[in-house]
Amino acid sequence: MRALLIGRFQPLHLGHMEVIRRAIGDYELVIGIGSAQKSHTIDNPFTAGERYEMIYRTLKKEGIGAHIIPIADVDYNSVWASHVISLCPPFDAVLSNNPLTIELFSPLKKVLGTEMFSRTEYSGKEIRSRMIEGEDWRSLVPREVSGYIDEIRGIERIRYLARGDEL
Amino acid sequence: MRALLIGRFQPLHLGHMEVIRRAIGDYELVIGIGSAQKSHTIDNPFTAGERYEMIYRTLKKEGIGAHIIPIADVDYNSVWASHVISLCPPFDAVLSNNPLTIELFSPLKKVLGTEMFSRTEYSGKEIRSRMIEGEDWRSLVPREVSGYIDEIRGIERIRYLARGDEL
Amino acid sequence: MRALLIGRFQPLHLGHMEVIRRAIGDYELVIGIGSAQKSHTIDNPFTAGERYEMIYRTLKKEGIGAHIIPIADVDYNSVWASHVISLCPPFDAVLSNNPLTIELFSPLKKVLGTEMFSRTEYSGKEIRSRMIEGEDWRSLVPREVSGYIDEIRGIERIRYLARGDEL
Amino acid sequence: MRALLIGRFQPLHLGHMEVIRRAIGDYELVIGIGSAQKSHTIDNPFTAGERYEMIYRTLKKEGIGAHIIPIADVDYNSVWASHVISLCPPFDAVLSNNPLTIELFSPLKKVLGTEMFSRTEYSGKEIRSRMIEGEDWRSLVPREVSGYIDEIRGIERIRYLARGDEL
Amino acid sequence: MRALLIGRFQPLHLGHMEVIRRAIGDYELVIGIGSAQKSHTIDNPFTAGERYEMIYRTLKKEGIGAHIIPIADVDYNSVWASHVISLCPPFDAVLSNNPLTIELFSPLKKVLGTEMFSRTEYSGKEIRSRMIEGEDWRSLVPREVSGYIDEIRGIERIRYLARGDEL
Amino acid sequence: MRALLIGRFQPLHLGHMEVIRRAIGDYELVIGIGSAQKSHTIDNPFTAGERYEMIYRTLKKEGIGAHIIPIADVDYNSVWASHVISLCPPFDAVLSNNPLTIELFSPLKKVLGTEMFSRTEYSGKEIRSRMIEGEDWRSLVPREVSGYIDEIRGIERIRYLARGDEL
Repeated sequence: MRALLIGRFQPLHLGHMEVIRRAIGDYELVIGIGSAQKSHTIDNPFTAGERYEMIYRTLKKEGIGAHIIPIADVDYNSVWASHVISLCPPFDAVLSNNPLTIELFSPLKKVLGTEMFSRTEYSGKEIRSRMIEGEDWRSLVPREVSGYIDEIRGIERIRYLARGDEL
Repeated sequence: MRALLIGRFQPLHLGHMEVIRRAIGDYELVIGIGSAQKSHTIDNPFTAGERYEMIYRTLKKEGIGAHIIPIADVDYNSVWASHVISLCPPFDAVLSNNPLTIELFSPLKKVLGTEMFSRTEYSGKEIRSRMIEGEDWRSLVPREVSGYIDEIRGIERIRYLARGDEL
Repeated sequence: MRALLIGRFQPLHLGHMEVIRRAIGDYELVIGIGSAQKSHTIDNPFTAGERYEMIYRTLKKEGIGAHIIPIADVDYNSVWASHVISLCPPFDAVLSNNPLTIELFSPLKKVLGTEMFSRTEYSGKEIRSRMIEGEDWRSLVPREVSGYIDEIRGIERIRYLARGDEL
Repeated sequence: MRALLIGRFQPLHLGHMEVIRRAIGDYELVIGIGSAQKSHTIDNPFTAGERYEMIYRTLKKEGIGAHIIPIADVDYNSVWASHVISLCPPFDAVLSNNPLTIELFSPLKKVLGTEMFSRTEYSGKEIRSRMIEGEDWRSLVPREVSGYIDEIRGIERIRYLARGDEL
Repeated sequence: MRALLIGRFQPLHLGHMEVIRRAIGDYELVIGIGSAQKSHTIDNPFTAGERYEMIYRTLKKEGIGAHIIPIADVDYNSVWASHVISLCPPFDAVLSNNPLTIELFSPLKKVLGTEMFSRTEYSGKEIRSRMIEGEDWRSLVPREVSGYIDEIRGIERIRYLARGDEL
Repeated sequence: MRALLIGRFQPLHLGHMEVIRRAIGDYELVIGIGSAQKSHTIDNPFTAGERYEMIYRTLKKEGIGAHIIPIADVDYNSVWASHVISLCPPFDAVLSNNPLTIELFSPLKKVLGTEMFSRTEYSGKEIRSRMIEGEDWRSLVPREVSGYIDEIRGIERIRYLARGDEL
């Protein structure tokens, strides 16, 4: 049975990995990378391709197979679930705790809740804030992710963007 | 003489109805449903089709005829008035108190002010907030609207969305 | 029971009216005006608002009530049915003989075939060609439609556009 | 008095220059580069920036001053004239022989016809076809244009694209 | 070394597989599914998700690993290569015989030609035409592809669409 | 040597002019008007065409020549630099202090810093705020700019919009 798990993965963190590890016993996973067209902002520093690479390397290291699909926003909630279904290989269920995702997929697919990981620490927002402030973020993400972010000089990028200014 | 009245109607409330009732004596109304592509957010919980239904049922109950036209945003103010004109049956004037609407239509159409209803109570924002907080919102909308929102379980939807969370 | 009938209505012709008259006994009709953003081309000479007016005047004359909804293209077939559903008041079935419409709506709505009118004569393409060539087109459309097209000088428009030229 | 002249300029040719030279005595020209987002196809080989450069160099050589404005398509005829007006410095009239341009600008601006140059030879289509077939095209464009096309290896580009193939 | 191979895969055929098999010895492949937003037309019958599934099943059967990335059109050639780079995991080279792809990627990436397979038979166009005409198409695609197309009743879909009609 | 300078110029102010004057000794300037599609909001009161006119009149008065190019947003950072390059005449370098601009152009063009003018006073935001509050803004912009804003009744427009209201 295939299940879709969708997130922005800015960046992939240990909270995501907890959900993935728990799911992988029961499902063949389709991982959707949301807001795929966004990058180079404080809330969305990494491109879809870079986020794909983070997920790919981490899953490979852990011996987990999954389908990873970049999904651009449509900014039209009524058609979003059809849009995701059109881009992903066929799947049977959606794994989500996000109210909007659940609301939009419910008429079309079986929706399954995911047990919550600690949202305070394991949140993309917290991690991006620590990156900017120079606090510890490495302990919140898989080692492959921090290594890849170093490779692409991601910390330099997000700190630089944080100095942003009116154009 | 035909006049355009444009709003988001999230949801249709008694303030809107006051304007409509006052106008209907003088004009054949074209009611434009703005931001038609938006739905399933806290500020725009209902689809254009659902908002059409609210307006249609209420006007029918009151014996008022009107043209109801969904109008998606173009996010390009310079062309917005031409966009609205292209989608609506021909009209002679615009009824509005909204500065942007007035500014954009003035070069192309006659613009007529509407007398203000009480903006504090009769505002979509106030109503949506009461829906989320579990306070009385029913007294601020026509009975057909509250009945229809119950039918589509709209309160459950908006409260659910209000729990929103970073994807 | 409400049924959706979708067409481009460039312009509304007697073939459309035959389908509408036959349907109106059984259904409350939602008439979708497709390719609503198109106008001022040989294949799509009239704006959505002008097409709304043609349909509105003709139905009014015949004493037929219907919901008339302009629907812009999304150019993304996988989400088109959801797009239409979002913009229209709730409906139960789709009336269509168009293979693409049937294919796209089948997973979401009941689809009902319509008996064919004579497609050779009663086709928008034939009528537009006659308009350009100066042949008889008036006998193929309701009198309200030809009257309205005269009012907006539509024949002059389509003939003028037919002289088109590389920009 | 300022007048707008709009074309695709794929490439700028001697027919365009004839119109420009004739107009420049009477008007301060705003030259709109249409379909600005298109490039690298057989019908639209050059980017808006490259077309700007062709026009700029040729006018400079001839001692003609003009405003040159790239204008992307909107694919929505009803709003196109407002779109052009929004992007260009204020102008008083439009110079055009193109029926669609005339039709769309007439409600908003004074439209002036331009005397026709020889359309058979001086057409972008003819010139692009000669570029592909290896026939003489240089005699149909200003010397600055052929020089610039050589500089950017434009002939190589268009011939290469003409070998096009299903992706 | 990673290389990108981009196609529409409507459907995946033996010509594609020949290129993939030859490349897989030298490169880790990123397979881009072009025109990802298109489906349900005669030229683009299958969704990106269905095309992903065809490729995934076939490669799995052959023991080939690859990254498969759906890529929607941007209809703006000047930015297309950047768009593809943004969506795909980092790659070092592009494998292509398509002139437009080569032209657009050359300024940004190393481009490598692919040896031609027989284009007459192994073309998506030929295969789709045979599907519609009821001729043999199965011998031109991998067995997993014909099996999957049967599963989703793809032949019925494309034949049905081929009856298409003016909306 | 040509250099690109990109800003929103809402409106052109003396801080911009300081940068332009300093640059003009060393470079032939291409001035990009960003967010060209925006107008009639508090943050973006003027159309691209109006902003072009402000820049054109001021530079003409000062005897400075420059290429002025309106550039609409693409809302897709990964392709933005390619988009700008496609619309502008060829340039060799980018002049900017904006982190996002620098980050996005660095892989494609030489990027040169600009010495900072006083950001507190000479900021579009400060000027627009003074326009709304009825404080002195004229001393912060070139005389041609304040004259042109008077001509188009710009202060009336921005104050009117500032009264904005939920649609």
